[in-house]
Amino acid sequence: ILEPPKKIKEILKDLWEVGKEDPRRVKHAFKVGVSLTLVSLLYLMEPFFKGIGKNAIWAVMTVVVVLEFSAGATLRKGLNRGLGTVIAGSLAYFMEFVALHSGKIIGAIFIGTAVFIIGSTVTYMRFVPYIKKNYDYGMLVFLLTFNLITVSSYTVHAAINIAQQRLFTIAMGIGICLVMSLLVFPIWSGDDLHKSTVTKLQGLSRSIEACVSEYFKEKEEDKEDSDFESDDENVIYKGYKTVLDSKASDEALAMFARWEPRHTIHCNKFPSQQYIKVGSVLRKFGYTVVALHGSLQTEIQTPRSIRILFRDPCVRLANEICKVLSELSESIRNRRHCSPEILSDKLEVALKDLNTAIKSQPKLFLGSNLHGDITNTHLNGDVSYYNDTNTNGIVSYHNDDKNNLNGCVLGQTTIQQNDTVSRCQSNSVMSDRRPVKKSTVTGERRRLRKQMSKIAVMKSLEFSEALPFAAFASLLVEMVARLDTVIDEVEELGTIACFKEYDKSFDRTDVQVRF
Amino acid sequence: ILEPPKKIKEILKDLWEVGKEDPRRVKHAFKVGVSLTLVSLLYLMEPFFKGIGKNAIWAVMTVVVVLEFSAGATLRKGLNRGLGTVIAGSLAYFMEFVALHSGKIIGAIFIGTAVFIIGSTVTYMRFVPYIKKNYDYGMLVFLLTFNLITVSSYTVHAAINIAQQRLFTIAMGIGICLVMSLLVFPIWSGDDLHKSTVTKLQGLSRSIEACVSEYFKEKEEDKEDSDFESDDENVIYKGYKTVLDSKASDEALAMFARWEPRHTIHCNKFPSQQYIKVGSVLRKFGYTVVALHGSLQTEIQTPRSIRILFRDPCVRLANEICKVLSELSESIRNRRHCSPEILSDKLEVALKDLNTAIKSQPKLFLGSNLHGDITNTHLNGDVSYYNDTNTNGIVSYHNDDKNNLNGCVLGQTTIQQNDTVSRCQSNSVMSDRRPVKKSTVTGERRRLRKQMSKIAVMKSLEFSEALPFAAFASLLVEMVARLDTVIDEVEELGTIACFKEYDKSFDRTDVQVRF
Repeated sequence: ILEPPKKIKEILKDLWEVGKEDPRRVKHAFKVGVSLTLVSLLYLMEPFFKGIGKNAIWAVMTVVVVLEFSAGATLRKGLNRGLGTVIAGSLAYFMEFVALHSGKIIGAIFIGTAVFIIGSTVTYMRFVPYIKKNYDYGMLVFLLTFNLITVSSYTVHAAINIAQQRLFTIAMGIGICLVMSLLVFPIWSGDDLHKSTVTKLQGLSRSIEACVSEYFKEKEEDKEDSDFESDDENVIYKGYKTVLDSKASDEALAMFARWEPRHTIHCNKFPSQQYIKVGSVLRKFGYTVVALHGSLQTEIQTPRSIRILFRDPCVRLANEICKVLSELSESIRNRRHCSPEILSDKLEVALKDLNTAIKSQPKLFLGSNLHGDITNTHLNGDVSYYNDTNTNGIVSYHNDDKNNLNGCVLGQTTIQQNDTVSRCQSNSVMSDRRPVKKSTVTGERRRLRKQMSKIAVMKSLEFSEALPFAAFASLLVEMVARLDTVIDEVEELGTIACFKEYDKSFDRTDVQVRF
Repeated sequence: ILEPPKKIKEILKDLWEVGKEDPRRVKHAFKVGVSLTLVSLLYLMEPFFKGIGKNAIWAVMTVVVVLEFSAGATLRKGLNRGLGTVIAGSLAYFMEFVALHSGKIIGAIFIGTAVFIIGSTVTYMRFVPYIKKNYDYGMLVFLLTFNLITVSSYTVHAAINIAQQRLFTIAMGIGICLVMSLLVFPIWSGDDLHKSTVTKLQGLSRSIEACVSEYFKEKEEDKEDSDFESDDENVIYKGYKTVLDSKASDEALAMFARWEPRHTIHCNKFPSQQYIKVGSVLRKFGYTVVALHGSLQTEIQTPRSIRILFRDPCVRLANEICKVLSELSESIRNRRHCSPEILSDKLEVALKDLNTAIKSQPKLFLGSNLHGDITNTHLNGDVSYYNDTNTNGIVSYHNDDKNNLNGCVLGQTTIQQNDTVSRCQSNSVMSDRRPVKKSTVTGERRRLRKQMSKIAVMKSLEFSEALPFAAFASLLVEMVARLDTVIDEVEELGTIACFKEYDKSFDRTDVQVRF
């Protein structure tokens, strides 16, 4: 459908993007080109060293297959290839020896059986998780080499000489790979793992920030703002997405990193295992962020007028959580321990305030009944009675230690009492409009389905409107609890990886996270 | 540390486990053994067909590398290898042609430059996501073959003849692979994808079931029961774990499945893309289950005496959700559309009842203040006043349509009023004991940390105890909302994959899910 020039433009754009995303890819491509050219020179040396030219094929193969993006991956493949070749070679020659000393036909049967048994066994062993993880490629090379040598040397004799040259060229290929990956612009998987951990912490922090600001946004979005909303949604989604899907890539990076030699003077060993642990704790933390995001998207929403009552403590609490995450990411980035005051007093105050704010709104579970019911006037009268005498009493009891915030909150409450009713109604209009918008996206098919009407019941239920907010608040509190395990693992990482001690002059905890 | 006999025993056990887990692995290993033996016969045919023996190396290589576990993966690799070889061969001979008609030195420079440019370009192109996903192996083979032919034919002439025989043996290798993977015990990735989708739905259902039964368990666990608890935890965790980590494996299976020929008479095309969509919707659903599980593990807990008030509607709601998930999994398993009444009236009733139950407990947000405060008697008096007049009014107003459940719930409430206080206290004792138990697990180090004291504040806050339950209930309701998108995607799958129409005689909706 696209015209050729357009298609070419697109391909070129793709290629450009790939390089822009990670410029080391260009370097890697350059390295492969140079290595292949070097290896090709072996062929030209044929006149000088007899026999190299013919076997240079193995050097080329080694370079093409072994030279991987990161140093760890290259070492892993190189060692696997080397070990596989040597072991397979030895075994094959032993077989050869036995076969040659039997008769011609018995020898053929012997070799055929050996090929079958070793082929099946090795293939089966590759399914064992430990082998699959560490030596999968080595097993493949073993199988390949064993078969090549066993079978070809059965017809071609004087095999020892060929094998020597072959090993020599393979060693040359591996040598070129090692020089290229360890000395020329080395790319370390360990560094990637380190950076990705920092990025994940920052992403989570950004997600939480965006979630909370989205939740307490003052205005309902108009159609015009929907682009902006999806922008905000994007920030939230991107922030935690990298964390959720990180398992496979983390494990691959950690596996490569384990093969890498020590390349920093800081510590004895790269703690790849601990990075995986941090990653898994962050994933668990990430699920809470997903749930928080879910409470923005849910069909039943607490009206904004009620949410606004809890805005201040929630925003401050989220702010503190973000600060802790940022401090952790800074600590990892700078390879130093995190501040001993990472859980600041402000976090504690914000938690207490949120608690007080929630306790001061006992009538919230009744909020949705305020639409002109028979019991409405009855109830309203009672709520205000309740409000005047008891709640204030409790609030002041809880309040005398620190702040006067709840005073204002309560002030707003009485003013917005009627306001709430009208907004609730406008909200229910909004939520009626929603499914229609959604169904145009997922197509006409959905509108026809019978069960649709039953889900719709849920929306018309006037479900207790405080419930979604309670979930939101609970998730924030849950996050604080999970922060503890995250800090634990990061500190453990700091201990194992010999991070620097915390330095007061690097203190960033006073830097305000923007909302 | 392990003695050799023990180690061997362990390795044998591992090998046995691998086969038990998926017996098709044994079949696959057998197939590889047979294929390799067949290919080895080529060497023995050397006396009959001149030249085959020498090039049989390529057939062996092809079989070892191309023959993968599933038919789709084999086809993908085989086609990639075939295409890569042919294109690289053509290009290499064109280069050869140009080089031969230049001088000796200019030709060498020309070929060196070509090797460098093509090596770099192909390596770089392999980073483009689309190519990486579909043609990564083909690019590798292209690079390998191009270099082998270009450079080796520069010294070894009469290349055309060699190339013909090489192509012939590679074709033979690919042929053996195709026969083995498509005709002898074929293993279809599409089937795996299908089955894993069914398993995921069942796992989620089991998780939710276990979560809810754990949440409403009557007794607090003693130390003796802790084994049992961890069993239950295991069920929950295992249920959703496969869903959460399914992204990478799903995409791999779908990619392989796309290469597989139609092997059922049901439909034109295997809808691998739709299976991925179902998987991603299930992952989103899974995050809600994780959050639900999180609300079991959180440090601040709603006392069991309060939870019990909502037991009935919650259990019924969860029951209905599980039923829907089971019905969906049955529908996919049997390749039929799901029941048009998949969202039963009971779901609606359970939702309504939960709503009513929550609305009938307006004082819950004050629950935690009942510990001997100054305001305690004041409050208690008020609550009961409140309880007697208003709430009952509302409940009966809401109640007159269907059930009399809330009546009992309220009955319990007044009885348990004092009970709640005592249980709350015993609960706070429990929660004080908790962190100690935890710290022995994560080691002494943690106890020494300064910030520990600040997290502990949270527990002592007597956080509004209804909050966690509200989150729990909200998540259940959220699940119902998300069920809709799951049903959507499964129905879409049914349409694309030409599922059978729903048959009343298969109706399982009346089968009770056990709790």
